[in-house]
Amino acid sequence: MGVIRNILNSRSGKGGNFFSVLHKILGFRPKNLLHYEKAFTHRSLNMKDKKGNAINFERMEFLGDAILSAVIASHLFKAVPGGNEGYLTKMRSKVVSRKHLNELGKDLKLIDHVQTNIPKNQFGSNIHGNLFEALIGAIYLDRGYKYCKRFIYERVIDPYVDIEQLEGRVISYKSLFIEWCQKEKREFDFEVYEDTGNDDVKHFAVKLRLDDKVVAKARATSKKKAEEKTAKRAYYALQNKIT
Amino acid sequence: MGVIRNILNSRSGKGGNFFSVLHKILGFRPKNLLHYEKAFTHRSLNMKDKKGNAINFERMEFLGDAILSAVIASHLFKAVPGGNEGYLTKMRSKVVSRKHLNELGKDLKLIDHVQTNIPKNQFGSNIHGNLFEALIGAIYLDRGYKYCKRFIYERVIDPYVDIEQLEGRVISYKSLFIEWCQKEKREFDFEVYEDTGNDDVKHFAVKLRLDDKVVAKARATSKKKAEEKTAKRAYYALQNKIT
Repeated sequence: MGVIRNILNSRSGKGGNFFSVLHKILGFRPKNLLHYEKAFTHRSLNMKDKKGNAINFERMEFLGDAILSAVIASHLFKAVPGGNEGYLTKMRSKVVSRKHLNELGKDLKLIDHVQTNIPKNQFGSNIHGNLFEALIGAIYLDRGYKYCKRFIYERVIDPYVDIEQLEGRVISYKSLFIEWCQKEKREFDFEVYEDTGNDDVKHFAVKLRLDDKVVAKARATSKKKAEEKTAKRAYYALQNKIT
Repeated sequence: MGVIRNILNSRSGKGGNFFSVLHKILGFRPKNLLHYEKAFTHRSLNMKDKKGNAINFERMEFLGDAILSAVIASHLFKAVPGGNEGYLTKMRSKVVSRKHLNELGKDLKLIDHVQTNIPKNQFGSNIHGNLFEALIGAIYLDRGYKYCKRFIYERVIDPYVDIEQLEGRVISYKSLFIEWCQKEKREFDFEVYEDTGNDDVKHFAVKLRLDDKVVAKARATSKKKAEEKTAKRAYYALQNKIT
C-alpha cells in the first residue's frame, strides 16, 4: 500500500489535507485512512496490492450498498409499523434509487477527491452515487456498523427520507405550506441566504416567516432543499398547534 | 401485545419454555422475547396491535433479509480480496439462495415453534427460509447488528460458507478425500453417530480415520453435512502437512 500512501499528499485541496476533508464529510474522525483512499481510487489508476488484487472503489461499492440497504431497511421497519413486506421493499428502493444516491454523492462533492487517470468530466453521472456507496463501505471497514448508521441518519434519513413524500402523498411541503397560507389568508416569506460556515460543502439556510414571525429555520446543500426542509418543519409545527 | 404474551405458554415444547428453546437456537440469551414471538407468528392468526397493525413474521423477514445480506457481503468482501463487484454479488446470491435459507431454517427446526391457524403441513417449503430471515430480524431488534453477525457466523458462515465450494471448484470434500486415499493407497473410515447432547436440534458426529488414526472430527445437523465438514477439515490438515 506504499503507492496509495503517496497519493495522500496530492489529496490536499482547499487548504486542508485528506483527513480534514474526510472529517468534514463524515462528521467524525476517520481512523484508518487507507479504507477511504481505496474508496476514492478509480480503476483507471490500475492500482494493485502486493498480491496483485485490484485496488479501486468498485468492491467498496458492493459493501456500502449492502450496509446502506440494511440501515434503510431497519429505519423503514421502525418508522412505518403498519407497512408490510412489499411496502417496505418499495419504499427502500425509492430511497436507494440511483438518482437519489447520485444526488447525495453530488451534494458532498465526493468527485472532487477521486484519484483517476481519466478526466473527471468523462465519468457518467453514476459516479456520484457509486462514490457515496463506496464511502459507506469505507466507514464500515474503518468504524463498523454503528458509525455507518450514524452517517446514514445524518446524511440520508434525517434530511431526505420523508415517508409521506416517498408515498407520493406529499410532493412538496413548500406548496402545501403556501396553499395553506392562501386559504387562511396569512402572509409568509421564505428568506434564503448562503450559510456554509465551516462546512466543506456549500450550504444554504432558510428562515420562514408567517405574519412576520419566524416559524421555522433549516439548512441544506441547495436552496430548494433548504426551503423544503423549512416548510416541512413549519407544516408539522403548525399541525401540532392546530390539533 | 397482551394476546401475544398469552401464547407464550403454549410454546413450551420438549420440556423447555420459549426462552430456553430460543437460547439454544441462538447461542445467547434473548432479552426481549416479544420480537421473537412476532418472528414466529404466522399471518393466519390474524393478530393485530392496538393501532390495528398486523403482527406476523412477514415484516421481520424484510428486516432479517437486509441484515443477512449485509453480514454476508462484509464476510465475502474480506474473505476474497481479489473478487470484484460482480463476483461478490454472485457469491452472495448463492449463500442467501432460497434453497440454502430453507435448509438453514429446517436444520434449526424453526417450524416447530410457529404459531399458526393453518396446519403446518400446508406451508410451502419456503416457510423454513422465511422463518430463518425473520429470526435474524428479531435478533437485530433485540440485540443489534453485532449479535446478528455472531449468529450468522455461527449458523451460516462458519459451517457452510466455503468459497471453493461456492465457486464450484470443490463439489464435495468427501469425494476429494476418498479420491486422494485411493490414489495414495491409504485406508479410511467415516464413523458416523448421533451426538445431539444438550442441543435442541438433532446432531450427528463423524470421526474420520486414516490408516486407523483419527485425523478429523466434526458435528452437524445431518449425516451428510457432518461427513462433508470432517472431510474438509481432514483435507486442509493433510494439505498443510504435505506442503
